[in-house]
Amino acid sequence: MHPNDLLTLLQAIRDGGLSVEAGMERLRALPFEDVGVAMIDHHRELRQGAPEVIFGEGKSAGQIFTIVEKMAEKGSNVLVTRLAAEKAEPLLARFPDATYDTDARAFCLTQRPLEIATRGTVLVVCAGTSDLPVAREAAVTARMLGNPVEELVDVGVAGIHRLFARADKLREAAVVIVVAGMEGALPSVIGGLVAVPVIAVPTSVGYGAAFGGVAALLGMLNSCAGGVTVVNIDNGFGAAYAATRINRIIQP
Amino acid sequence: MHPNDLLTLLQAIRDGGLSVEAGMERLRALPFEDVGVAMIDHHRELRQGAPEVIFGEGKSAGQIFTIVEKMAEKGSNVLVTRLAAEKAEPLLARFPDATYDTDARAFCLTQRPLEIATRGTVLVVCAGTSDLPVAREAAVTARMLGNPVEELVDVGVAGIHRLFARADKLREAAVVIVVAGMEGALPSVIGGLVAVPVIAVPTSVGYGAAFGGVAALLGMLNSCAGGVTVVNIDNGFGAAYAATRINRIIQP
Amino acid sequence: MHPNDLLTLLQAIRDGGLSVEAGMERLRALPFEDVGVAMIDHHRELRQGAPEVIFGEGKSAGQIFTIVEKMAEKGSNVLVTRLAAEKAEPLLARFPDATYDTDARAFCLTQRPLEIATRGTVLVVCAGTSDLPVAREAAVTARMLGNPVEELVDVGVAGIHRLFARADKLREAAVVIVVAGMEGALPSVIGGLVAVPVIAVPTSVGYGAAFGGVAALLGMLNSCAGGVTVVNIDNGFGAAYAATRINRIIQP
Amino acid sequence: MHPNDLLTLLQAIRDGGLSVEAGMERLRALPFEDVGVAMIDHHRELRQGAPEVIFGEGKSAGQIFTIVEKMAEKGSNVLVTRLAAEKAEPLLARFPDATYDTDARAFCLTQRPLEIATRGTVLVVCAGTSDLPVAREAAVTARMLGNPVEELVDVGVAGIHRLFARADKLREAAVVIVVAGMEGALPSVIGGLVAVPVIAVPTSVGYGAAFGGVAALLGMLNSCAGGVTVVNIDNGFGAAYAATRINRIIQP
Amino acid sequence: MHPNDLLTLLQAIRDGGLSVEAGMERLRALPFEDVGVAMIDHHRELRQGAPEVIFGEGKSAGQIFTIVEKMAEKGSNVLVTRLAAEKAEPLLARFPDATYDTDARAFCLTQRPLEIATRGTVLVVCAGTSDLPVAREAAVTARMLGNPVEELVDVGVAGIHRLFARADKLREAAVVIVVAGMEGALPSVIGGLVAVPVIAVPTSVGYGAAFGGVAALLGMLNSCAGGVTVVNIDNGFGAAYAATRINRIIQP
Amino acid sequence: MHPNDLLTLLQAIRDGGLSVEAGMERLRALPFEDVGVAMIDHHRELRQGAPEVIFGEGKSAGQIFTIVEKMAEKGSNVLVTRLAAEKAEPLLARFPDATYDTDARAFCLTQRPLEIATRGTVLVVCAGTSDLPVAREAAVTARMLGNPVEELVDVGVAGIHRLFARADKLREAAVVIVVAGMEGALPSVIGGLVAVPVIAVPTSVGYGAAFGGVAALLGMLNSCAGGVTVVNIDNGFGAAYAATRINRIIQP
Amino acid sequence: MHPNDLLTLLQAIRDGGLSVEAGMERLRALPFEDVGVAMIDHHRELRQGAPEVIFGEGKSAGQIFTIVEKMAEKGSNVLVTRLAAEKAEPLLARFPDATYDTDARAFCLTQRPLEIATRGTVLVVCAGTSDLPVAREAAVTARMLGNPVEELVDVGVAGIHRLFARADKLREAAVVIVVAGMEGALPSVIGGLVAVPVIAVPTSVGYGAAFGGVAALLGMLNSCAGGVTVVNIDNGFGAAYAATRINRIIQP
Amino acid sequence: MHPNDLLTLLQAIRDGGLSVEAGMERLRALPFEDVGVAMIDHHRELRQGAPEVIFGEGKSAGQIFTIVEKMAEKGSNVLVTRLAAEKAEPLLARFPDATYDTDARAFCLTQRPLEIATRGTVLVVCAGTSDLPVAREAAVTARMLGNPVEELVDVGVAGIHRLFARADKLREAAVVIVVAGMEGALPSVIGGLVAVPVIAVPTSVGYGAAFGGVAALLGMLNSCAGGVTVVNIDNGFGAAYAATRINRIIQP
Repeated sequence: MHPNDLLTLLQAIRDGGLSVEAGMERLRALPFEDVGVAMIDHHRELRQGAPEVIFGEGKSAGQIFTIVEKMAEKGSNVLVTRLAAEKAEPLLARFPDATYDTDARAFCLTQRPLEIATRGTVLVVCAGTSDLPVAREAAVTARMLGNPVEELVDVGVAGIHRLFARADKLREAAVVIVVAGMEGALPSVIGGLVAVPVIAVPTSVGYGAAFGGVAALLGMLNSCAGGVTVVNIDNGFGAAYAATRINRIIQP
Repeated sequence: MHPNDLLTLLQAIRDGGLSVEAGMERLRALPFEDVGVAMIDHHRELRQGAPEVIFGEGKSAGQIFTIVEKMAEKGSNVLVTRLAAEKAEPLLARFPDATYDTDARAFCLTQRPLEIATRGTVLVVCAGTSDLPVAREAAVTARMLGNPVEELVDVGVAGIHRLFARADKLREAAVVIVVAGMEGALPSVIGGLVAVPVIAVPTSVGYGAAFGGVAALLGMLNSCAGGVTVVNIDNGFGAAYAATRINRIIQP
Repeated sequence: MHPNDLLTLLQAIRDGGLSVEAGMERLRALPFEDVGVAMIDHHRELRQGAPEVIFGEGKSAGQIFTIVEKMAEKGSNVLVTRLAAEKAEPLLARFPDATYDTDARAFCLTQRPLEIATRGTVLVVCAGTSDLPVAREAAVTARMLGNPVEELVDVGVAGIHRLFARADKLREAAVVIVVAGMEGALPSVIGGLVAVPVIAVPTSVGYGAAFGGVAALLGMLNSCAGGVTVVNIDNGFGAAYAATRINRIIQP
Repeated sequence: MHPNDLLTLLQAIRDGGLSVEAGMERLRALPFEDVGVAMIDHHRELRQGAPEVIFGEGKSAGQIFTIVEKMAEKGSNVLVTRLAAEKAEPLLARFPDATYDTDARAFCLTQRPLEIATRGTVLVVCAGTSDLPVAREAAVTARMLGNPVEELVDVGVAGIHRLFARADKLREAAVVIVVAGMEGALPSVIGGLVAVPVIAVPTSVGYGAAFGGVAALLGMLNSCAGGVTVVNIDNGFGAAYAATRINRIIQP
Repeated sequence: MHPNDLLTLLQAIRDGGLSVEAGMERLRALPFEDVGVAMIDHHRELRQGAPEVIFGEGKSAGQIFTIVEKMAEKGSNVLVTRLAAEKAEPLLARFPDATYDTDARAFCLTQRPLEIATRGTVLVVCAGTSDLPVAREAAVTARMLGNPVEELVDVGVAGIHRLFARADKLREAAVVIVVAGMEGALPSVIGGLVAVPVIAVPTSVGYGAAFGGVAALLGMLNSCAGGVTVVNIDNGFGAAYAATRINRIIQP
Repeated sequence: MHPNDLLTLLQAIRDGGLSVEAGMERLRALPFEDVGVAMIDHHRELRQGAPEVIFGEGKSAGQIFTIVEKMAEKGSNVLVTRLAAEKAEPLLARFPDATYDTDARAFCLTQRPLEIATRGTVLVVCAGTSDLPVAREAAVTARMLGNPVEELVDVGVAGIHRLFARADKLREAAVVIVVAGMEGALPSVIGGLVAVPVIAVPTSVGYGAAFGGVAALLGMLNSCAGGVTVVNIDNGFGAAYAATRINRIIQP
Repeated sequence: MHPNDLLTLLQAIRDGGLSVEAGMERLRALPFEDVGVAMIDHHRELRQGAPEVIFGEGKSAGQIFTIVEKMAEKGSNVLVTRLAAEKAEPLLARFPDATYDTDARAFCLTQRPLEIATRGTVLVVCAGTSDLPVAREAAVTARMLGNPVEELVDVGVAGIHRLFARADKLREAAVVIVVAGMEGALPSVIGGLVAVPVIAVPTSVGYGAAFGGVAALLGMLNSCAGGVTVVNIDNGFGAAYAATRINRIIQP
Repeated sequence: MHPNDLLTLLQAIRDGGLSVEAGMERLRALPFEDVGVAMIDHHRELRQGAPEVIFGEGKSAGQIFTIVEKMAEKGSNVLVTRLAAEKAEPLLARFPDATYDTDARAFCLTQRPLEIATRGTVLVVCAGTSDLPVAREAAVTARMLGNPVEELVDVGVAGIHRLFARADKLREAAVVIVVAGMEGALPSVIGGLVAVPVIAVPTSVGYGAAFGGVAALLGMLNSCAGGVTVVNIDNGFGAAYAATRINRIIQP
């Protein structure tokens, strides 16, 4: 129910054009969606200028092309995650200004500027080169959601000195996303080094008793570093979204 | 190695009181802990005025009493979590100004003021009354870590209207901690309603296929609401710590 | 917002005592709970005359006594499930007309008649004598929710002739609740024999690879009999509640 | 043993054409199947006019074609579930009046009318678009089993207002099938809103810690809404079958 | 329906005392149990002289005493498994001729001789001393079921020479029951040494990744020795029962 | 060490051709394999006339062809299990008298007669048509191991009357192998009907919470019918091997 | 068979006191244990001077006392692991020179010197104070097995600088045992720092998704540091035993 | 920071070319990596002459070719593990002196001699022929890391005499790597026979309840032989690396 409709209804009651009983009946059936929309007004603030997002896995090239084109017509920014390279080709032919990140397997179309204020840099740290696709998905998503992003690659705990060599980056971040597979130990180390929020992303990298990311997931949930939070296995997108919730400056 | 010690060492070299070789030898053995401490200087900012924390489970009343007394002597604030009521008694007798929260099973001794700036209120939402101990642990911890805290109890998804009736609290929070057992669905609903960070805490409430909190944990990790992050089962403390990382205003 | 309040508001607008703008403002903030309550009006029909239900596990005898007394004052019927015998004693002393079922570990206080129309009998079938507590919880609950109930005990699949000897009971039921532990095979056999709804309840009876009811749960979820549905392990209460949803005659 | 055979046997005894001993011997060996058939007479009522059902997965196009043709010769209605599109082609060429639902991956051949009385509408609610194939399997099956069916798509809990906007559909249903993957929270919300039976279908939609539908399954088994029942992961067919058990009007 | 009843019924038809129709009606309702009983006649052969068996776990001393006394009155042999020593005391006081095996935690009352023919000896092999209770339960049960029994203790695979030193016992057995916890490897070794049936019993002995017997269970199910079969964790009774099925000479 | 060699050695000592010390040295190093071989003499009895067995899965057509040809040269009977149809073709071309069972996916080459005495028939019972490949593997293997074999198909517990209709087959079997997927309930029903050994084979048939045969496996391990034993998922071969251990008449 | 017996036997043959046939018969039955013992001669070298070890868990104080006394009579060194303090008391009263480590819950009786050569120090590193009992069990065991032992406590990865501060100890160790619960990340960090063998011991320390040590176990099995090996959860004894296998200087 | 740089810095301070404050500033920022490198100097000793190692799985033929070529230019030895045969072809064409092991799926390029001292032979024991790829990966890796290697194939526990026949090899080994799938029992047997370190490698060989190597993994973790250590499923490389840590003679 649009505010204007409500206005009209109340005016009709005031003016006698609608009986109190009829008005009451209509209001009892007040569509929930309006209530909901009112509630998510606050949420919209987050979405301001943010891209429309499509989860590309399990959708055909044709389906994705159709959806993207429809969104692009409205002038929206568009992010397609988990998009195989061959499915990206027709999109890139159609939108020459768009980009495709082969590591992240993400397609980005930016038609209008991202202008949202943030507190600082989102740092995406990646334990091993095999974890890179997930880390890049986090980085690409965080950028499309309006965050300044830095990346730090191949700093796993078995060669901990490589992490320490880049301590400067850790010191400057407003939020740190830590992507790691296998034993998933990196967030514990980083969580002990920085005071800012640390979001851990387990990856399905590994074999045998890695159980498709379960070992890393459990490792992160049991981190001995206080206040590390965790998202689903391989969920680089979700980590970036969570970082944006933290990093976005929202007027109360 | 304290900066003063380093200063003294370098001055001694400059002044000839120490040979270059002897100085080099001492520096080679530069204690790692100092390096580490330097690194966690930033971390200290987080801890400013924060309590010393003791995990009470599995420690005897005597052990806890000794530790608390030692910390109290230094003038620290002290938080003991997972403390059985009977173990709290000697502490309360010894520290009459301290408090014990029976729901949270937490002992709090505040000897000096908590003066750290935060962005806003941490809202702790609790799905059912059985989840209350975990929710209260989160609330008590968040307060001891310097956050303004609000609580919202018994607003599970099977009676979703109760949540909507308190939409005002959701709108005003800077960070939301959502505590739920059984199917752990509440964070998904709240994650769809607010734009601020949502930290989900699965609890071990339930029986049978709840598997001691695994059902709730999996539900939260697979939340269809974007950017919800998760901590370990029953880890109210960790959620509050994570909220503090987010809510604390840190000077870069 | 009570319908009367809404009536008053609209009348005030009609009568000019409230401006359209002020009324609109109040309606925008329309409490969600009212909407919710409106929605669950239909739900109330189910609850008509139904008992208040308390999950007794994990609550002290004192807590339960207080809750029951408060509910009893309002004239409600009261059902306490998972109530240890020793916790039932003070209740039975206080409410001499109440009953306690030692198998079901359920306390029942019936202060007003249950008058809701049902389609027929709920038959609770129990595979082995060890499954009896769960079966009895289902039976007691179903009765308190206004269903005629029949019970059939110790008819496990390893002595399948015992089940067939009571085929008459199966033929006459409107809904069948099948309670079984260990391999949980009984619902498959019964599901192949009757055309009415079959609700399967796995129990935690068994040891070793029974894994606290997981074997029975999986067996029931994979039933080769079409259309068997399942509730949580040991959830006799839930099965009775589901049977009531099916068996209750609701006016559309 | 056909009743006529039994009649003949008893008459032969009465008439002296068969000795008591010989008759006794034949009756001792009374084929179990007859007993069983007698028992499932009641079951037949359910099947009246219902389709023959083939589980298409793992069968070759040729095998399916042969089975369907054989059933069609008898004038039966036929439902093939989990049928890949390419395997449906020869069937559609052979039976021009049949239909194939690409979402449900189901083939339907209706040769005679479905005339069974039901209590009302089966509403199939689907959390996300990825859950659609399972929801459509439920809807197609429910229709072939003689139920009026309504569908409600993409009303997941993270955008709960979309569900509330369609509250009318929920109010009018006689049975609700709720299909959801990921955290599987939707049945809890709906179970709290309606008084009619709710059958929850977890889907294998999701990745990582969704564990192929286990997260949704556990969520549904632990639903905090009373009386929600659950079927196997992706078992849209089973949910429709269970709904039919509930919705069919059976003469006792 | 007792054969005599059937005889009477048929005679009444022959003699005209019962109409064919009335007889037919009674036969249509032929109790399933009779059919079942007919079927399990063969099964009775197995039970000839065998003890009544009571699973003692979870039953009170009083309950067990009552059941045993009732069985003893009929002159039955009685076996109570999983019986705590203190619960056995009143039974031993009441039945001075009975015995209680403290390792097996089994009570045996033999009132009539066990006279069933067997093919040979059941050998119970036990990997470690901690597995002894389960092994003894198997041995005691096998004896009460009429088998000659030999035992071989503490011949685990880490000291494989101890097993080989007793090769004579292995050679002479008709059936071998192998009881082992931890990695459960012993059945594989023995399965490679003997040609007779090998029944493997995993025990819950072990800690950590033994997972209460799961490691042993999986080891036994995956035995590289052909034709080893497995029963539930700690199920010494079941193994003895299976051995009896094999070892009993049954007249076809 | 062949007995003849030992004889020669001892004779040489007796005759003075070998010193006691040299003989002792040779005996100390007594090859374990001889000991082992001595031990498995008994085992050989089982293998008398039995086929060489090759597990075909994961081997190339070429590898299998080579192995079979080599075995065939020695005049052995050969059984290849888990052999894809296309890999069987060159074998069938090379050995025109051999057979290939497409259901069992087993190749059988019988070059010499199987002449071993057995106690009776091995009955292979199969719950559903999808379980047929495993059931057929068991049947083909049991035949190649010298057992008379009967088969009974599609007698699942949801249509239990079909099983009862074939009670004669159950009555006549010496050993029963029961093959079932999904909930794996059939062995419990059969175990309650017959007194002979019952070997349960869970299959990976099913989907979702069937977990590739785990549901059936757990169901069978927790069978409420006494003395049912279990082999690995889909292990038709192992069940047949176990049946042969039971059914073979071995001279002690 | 003792070598002397073999000598006697061969001499009797040589001397004609025993026929070749009788000797052959005795040799055919050559006890396997002798062969085994011959084989484990090498093993004995490891045990030289090593203590007899008793696993105290699940044994009564009386049983343990009896076993220890019997071993002590032979002059053996004795180690009892997992021994509750109250069970240690009678032992300490009986053997005043013995010691009991309350952290390790281990009783040590040293009656003769440990004199075996080792390559160097076994360093036991412990992540958190809660892991101490397991670490101490490893340390006490390693000492009783003849190794020089160093310990390093509370150097978890969340405060990684504490580990680096003790780099000297890491540098000097011949074998490192790393004991850690929760996420079990410490072995990865240490495995990247040292070139000597690293044995990881997961502990059951933690709660919720720690799953009794499973999280730590999986973390260690998936260590990104090459060549880290793992023992069972809480198996400090096993780690010490493995370290001894490595550290002991064995003459080939 | 190279020692020379530190020397220069201190000399500059001594000589007055650098102020104490400026020197202090540079030292405070002492790069962690130098510290780390200093620490891993010891580690380098292990790597002396060792190959660069590439994990081939999941990398394209092109990527691998590029990496190998780059490493080869520096004169390094190169080992590529988990390399599919077709990806090895271009490498073998480019480096004619290199070898490719089809069982191990490993590519080895040896450009400079491996000259590191070891204590003795690494023996790789393999339970079944299906475990061969993992065993060969261990053997090839161990050789490339400078160890003398022996192999022992197809000595599974179901034919234990084959193992005993090769007791000589066991006696001569300095370290034993035991590779086994299915029930993973072989390390227990070998651990009881030898005193040297035993590293167990579970393989994913098996089906059904083997769960991709979990059964073998659990079996090995629960080995009743003291001091057996375990690596990840199929991790032949890791076992060889661990063996090298043990076998390498490192100067303290």
